Parts: sequence; C-alpha cells; structure tokens
Amino acid sequence: MSQLSPGPGDAIRVAVSAVIFSLRSDPDADRLMIPLVRRTRAPHEGMWALPGGWPGTTEGLDDAAARTLAETTALTPSYLEQLYTFGDVDRSPTRVVSVVYWALLRSDLVDAQRAVAGAPENVEWFDVDDLPALAFDHNHIAGYALWRLRNKVGYSRIAAGLLPDEFTLTELREVYETVLGRRLDPSNFRRLLEGSEELVPTESFRTGKHRPARLYRYNADAEVETLGPLEA
Amino acid sequence: MSQLSPGPGDAIRVAVSAVIFSLRSDPDADRLMIPLVRRTRAPHEGMWALPGGWPGTTEGLDDAAARTLAETTALTPSYLEQLYTFGDVDRSPTRVVSVVYWALLRSDLVDAQRAVAGAPENVEWFDVDDLPALAFDHNHIAGYALWRLRNKVGYSRIAAGLLPDEFTLTELREVYETVLGRRLDPSNFRRLLEGSEELVPTESFRTGKHRPARLYRYNADAEVETLGPLEA
Repeated sequence: MSQLSPGPGDAIRVAVSAVIFSLRSDPDADRLMIPLVRRTRAPHEGMWALPGGWPGTTEGLDDAAARTLAETTALTPSYLEQLYTFGDVDRSPTRVVSVVYWALLRSDLVDAQRAVAGAPENVEWFDVDDLPALAFDHNHIAGYALWRLRNKVGYSRIAAGLLPDEFTLTELREVYETVLGRRLDPSNFRRLLEGSEELVPTESFRTGKHRPARLYRYNADAEVETLGPLEA
Repeated sequence: MSQLSPGPGDAIRVAVSAVIFSLRSDPDADRLMIPLVRRTRAPHEGMWALPGGWPGTTEGLDDAAARTLAETTALTPSYLEQLYTFGDVDRSPTRVVSVVYWALLRSDLVDAQRAVAGAPENVEWFDVDDLPALAFDHNHIAGYALWRLRNKVGYSRIAAGLLPDEFTLTELREVYETVLGRRLDPSNFRRLLEGSEELVPTESFRTGKHRPARLYRYNADAEVETLGPLEA
C-alpha cells in the first residue's frame, strides 16, 4: 500500500495524448475534425496517431499535455481538459498508461496559430466520422472523446468553445448539427434557445445576402450546472 | 513520440485509488460517508488515506482498482467508474500518478459484505463533510469526488445507486438531501418527480407508523442523457 514501496507500478509508463476538436471548412459545409500526427518510428511507424508524448519528471500532467501538443502540432488551445485515462494491458507493445486530454478549438484560432507557427510536417486534420486505422488504441480513444462531446453538447454550452463570442442562432444550430451529426428543426431550436436564460441578444446583426440576423452571446451570469473548462 | 523510446515516463509510477460513497446511519440521520484506510508505513504513516495500491504489470486499471479496494477494505461495489487522474509533481515524495475510481455502494450491501468478510483492521468510515487531514493529496481528491457527485446528482439518476430497487418519494428526497447537504421542499420535489418519466409507480406501499407511501422504481426504458455506470 505504501506509495514508496517498490512495486509493479515501476514497470508501467505514463504518457499523455490529446483529442482536439475543431470545425474545419469543406467546400460544402463545416466538418468536425481532429488533428493527427503521422508516426515516424516503431511501433506503428507510418500510421496516424493522436498528438502526445511523455511527461517530464518535474512536469504536471496538464502541462505535459499542452507541451507535447504544441511540440507536435503547434496548436495551443486556451484550455485542455482531462478526458480519461486508458490503461488496458495490450494497448501498446510495452505497458503504457495514457492520460488523455481534450479541447475545443475555434477554427479561426487554428488558422491564426497556423499563420504564426506554420503547418508542422506530419500533421493533418481528419473528419471524426471518417478516421483511418490509427496507431495503438487511438481509434477507441477518439471514439470515446466523440461520444463524450456529443453527449455533453446536449446539456451544456459546449458549442461556445467552437464559436466566436457573438453568433446568430443559425450559426449556433449549425454547430450543434455538425457536432451531433444530424439535422435539428430550426423553429424548435429557435424557440428552445430564445426561451432560455443561456443566451443574451445583442444589438448587432449579421448582414449579407439573407435578411439581417441578430447576434447573440452566451449569458455569463447564467448558472451553469456543470462548470467544466470545456463550457467556459 | 514513440511509445517505445526510453523517456522520462520511466521515472513516474502509476497507482490506483478509490472513493466509495455510502449512506451510513447515525442515531439521527443518514450521513454521506467514505471508507478510509490507516497507513501502516511511511510516508504519512498513521494517517488516513483512500484505499488503493499498485496495478500489476498484466492487470488493467479497472481490475487493479477493484482488487486493491477489496484487499484493503473487503468492499466490492458492483461497478467502479474512473473519476480522474491526479499527477501533480509534489503530491507524493516520489513521483506517483494516481488513477482514481469512484462508486456508490448501498448501505445494506456494505453491511452484507461486512457480515461475510468481516471488518478489516485499519478501516473506518468518515463523514465526507468532516474528514481528517489525509495522506498525500487525498483531501483534494475526496473533495473533487464529492463535488462531482453533488454536481451529477442534479441531472442524473445517481441516487439510484444509493437506494434499493423500490423506494418511496420521501426516501428518494432524503437521499438527495444527504448528498446535496441541504433540505429540499417536499411538495416541489414530489411535483417534479411525479411529472417526469424517470420514475414508475409500483402497486406496493411502504407501511409503518405513517400513512402508507407508494413505492417507486426508476424507469428502465427512459432515455438517460448520460449513461454512465454510476447511473445504472
């Protein structure tokens, strides 16, 4: 029981990985995507994997996740939230326990960071619903992250992490539709959101080829049931 | 990046711990309590700590959590859910990353398991709102588990994990009150629950010194938004 006694824990190594969701534009529509890194050595050389690496001895797990993500992809989300720790015995040729983090990253911030840091080699964005066969158990991990995201979007303001500060109800609905992977009834959606205390109408409007649409923002004063970083 | 390359990950050890909530009877009322184990060696010898230990090299994390919990406390919840992984650099004299699990355990099952396995030495139940100073960062961990439980009870059928299969609305309200640590208005509670699809009235009644009270059960067919093991 002592945390100082020699034990089998010695033979298990700790890694960190990250699943970063963003809405990337297709010619037709936005798609929910994650960045993957092509492995350059064994095991699974040449396969795509989640960005990640090894925590330093004097580095906390959160810091390690942010650092390894930045080193591999040049991406820096405002906040990474711990998702789950994967430790199946056979998930890697040697015994590795992976502490996985996730984040939402606004598309315009991805582009802005790319403009500064350049696009790293061996990194590409993939549609979460159309991933290739990934290294290790990373398909399983990505699938779990997606399940949690789709589950969470129903009862939280998670969509805020994928939108600018002000947005139209149509833009908000489209984020929900992309994340959930299905169409929502526009009238029902509008009625539900307009009646909630979650959203605050602004005095600004989006103008363009359609008739002007009012911009909304999330109500910072509304009581949020689950105040996790992903909803901040 | 390779999961086979030698790296600092080697110097970090992996442990598992568990926070087991149950409603234990006081002369006056039920209290929300967790079992703690008194440490018999350094570091923090003599202090109370969460039950736990080291995963075996060929043992998954879930199995390790269940095994070490049984070895230290003789308790076997029907299901342990992973809560969070704690990895701050200074949480232990040596670098230990602790994968923490939690569970709800019905009071009558605690008693039944005790009757079979006996009461292990060095184990006691403590009121979650009145914990002593614990070893390592275990006060922090227990506080986080309690926060998650209180947060989750609001939007899930988590109370089912603390109740028998059939229960009166008063019993259900008392579980909520004990978990949340505050009184709820009985009429509002009754109105809210009777109007939901969550509960199904049975044809049985609890009789005693008060007037008979109808027994309810959770509706197995109702769609639950967050289908975690704690709500099963």
